[in-house]
Amino acid sequence: MPYLTNIVARRIQWGECDPAGIVFYPRYFEMFDASTTALFERALGMTKYQFTNAYGAVGYPMVDTRARFLIPARFGDDVIIETTVAEFRRSSFDVRHRILKDGKLAVEGSETRVWAVRDKADPSRIKSQPIPRDIIARFEAG
Amino acid sequence: MPYLTNIVARRIQWGECDPAGIVFYPRYFEMFDASTTALFERALGMTKYQFTNAYGAVGYPMVDTRARFLIPARFGDDVIIETTVAEFRRSSFDVRHRILKDGKLAVEGSETRVWAVRDKADPSRIKSQPIPRDIIARFEAG
Amino acid sequence: MPYLTNIVARRIQWGECDPAGIVFYPRYFEMFDASTTALFERALGMTKYQFTNAYGAVGYPMVDTRARFLIPARFGDDVIIETTVAEFRRSSFDVRHRILKDGKLAVEGSETRVWAVRDKADPSRIKSQPIPRDIIARFEAG
Amino acid sequence: MPYLTNIVARRIQWGECDPAGIVFYPRYFEMFDASTTALFERALGMTKYQFTNAYGAVGYPMVDTRARFLIPARFGDDVIIETTVAEFRRSSFDVRHRILKDGKLAVEGSETRVWAVRDKADPSRIKSQPIPRDIIARFEAG
Repeated sequence: MPYLTNIVARRIQWGECDPAGIVFYPRYFEMFDASTTALFERALGMTKYQFTNAYGAVGYPMVDTRARFLIPARFGDDVIIETTVAEFRRSSFDVRHRILKDGKLAVEGSETRVWAVRDKADPSRIKSQPIPRDIIARFEAG
Repeated sequence: MPYLTNIVARRIQWGECDPAGIVFYPRYFEMFDASTTALFERALGMTKYQFTNAYGAVGYPMVDTRARFLIPARFGDDVIIETTVAEFRRSSFDVRHRILKDGKLAVEGSETRVWAVRDKADPSRIKSQPIPRDIIARFEAG
Repeated sequence: MPYLTNIVARRIQWGECDPAGIVFYPRYFEMFDASTTALFERALGMTKYQFTNAYGAVGYPMVDTRARFLIPARFGDDVIIETTVAEFRRSSFDVRHRILKDGKLAVEGSETRVWAVRDKADPSRIKSQPIPRDIIARFEAG
Repeated sequence: MPYLTNIVARRIQWGECDPAGIVFYPRYFEMFDASTTALFERALGMTKYQFTNAYGAVGYPMVDTRARFLIPARFGDDVIIETTVAEFRRSSFDVRHRILKDGKLAVEGSETRVWAVRDKADPSRIKSQPIPRDIIARFEAG
């Protein structure tokens, strides 16, 4: 059974585009990061500020990410971003994003992140930790 | 009679915040730029891509802007951005923004922009031009 | 006697420009923030990570900032950013920036910041605090 | 024989980091984009503005990119970015980036881009085109 999927609708902004008039591709990764958070916020019913505090985490830093750009988008274009978790492992998980423009796949993204906490021995450091079971359960309930 | 006001509701994103955990202030100017565009899009019933093409303009570059930061906001905070044109002049205009958090004024911004077109003699250059009268009329109708 | 001035030379990047082909103005505030930090790093002989830790501070959040844009810059343009502290007060200070392109003033920025620490009673909050005297002294020595 | 490699040294900025205190990963893609341009600028002895105009191109939009994040970096960290073209094909090419911190591989990036021009039939569209032979030759000469 697939995990919860979240959908974000947004308009491409002028400031996200480059001199070619299309989205400067690092902005897609900003959209993906916001989309992963929107998915977690929906699954957990809390903002990221709330759930990182509730679980004593610092977030879910990126380990590996990839994106393919199929159709360019420009300012004023309305897009849909579909985001879902493809797999939860012990302390890492995979997310998939699909950006659709006029119903067609424009950008495809995948990412592997780890659930992370501050290292108690050295709070300036971050380390991965098992994803709380009840968090995963909230994605299954979808 | 005041000009049209537009309101944007948004959640502060993780990626907009800095190591202090609060919004990195240049991001507020990105929000303001998007808010000015949202106001124009609402007034004109077209996206910025559509109205810049319809009027042969390249946009409304910034001439002078100021912002005061009263209450910090952090990721997960929901804010309201109120945007209105304070004054239209021949080829320049003033915009005012107010960002509210929990109903309180958190950030206040003002900006002076010019209506700009490509210079026909040298398309690599941009120059100001009178704001089309029917554009101003659409802000009055609000 | 004026305080220490720092100069940063940089090339405008493609990703800092918008569909009009010129710098998207919020990027100038990113440049200013980096320039203020470069000035502090030079004055104190430490990186921002080092001096915020050394002084138990979280940084110098922005209170009020303004910029005037006189000459547009586009990707590939080489600019010079001159940054200096105009005034130190008890817990706040004013910074001035001048961006020069081909020796001419292209952008002028001013900012008021506060020296900030975490609130011991509530570490999720930030509060201003007097600027350490020896920090100010390092700007005078220049 | 490998193609020209370019090296960029830079300090991680406060504004590039997130509330966890480490680089917000989309900023690495901004660094990669600037590094690819720095490589082209060095190979061709022109700025991107100059060489896109000289060759009638709009740039080299991204088709596919991936990055792996091995060691986190935070504001104040000095990193080295090594960038090289792995392969030139007819109208696309592959770039490799390695970000080193304290001599250790911190981030690894790869990208496939296309050489692009405006579509003469519809200037609002961008299309790929064979990479000029003399551009490739400049990367071999290194």
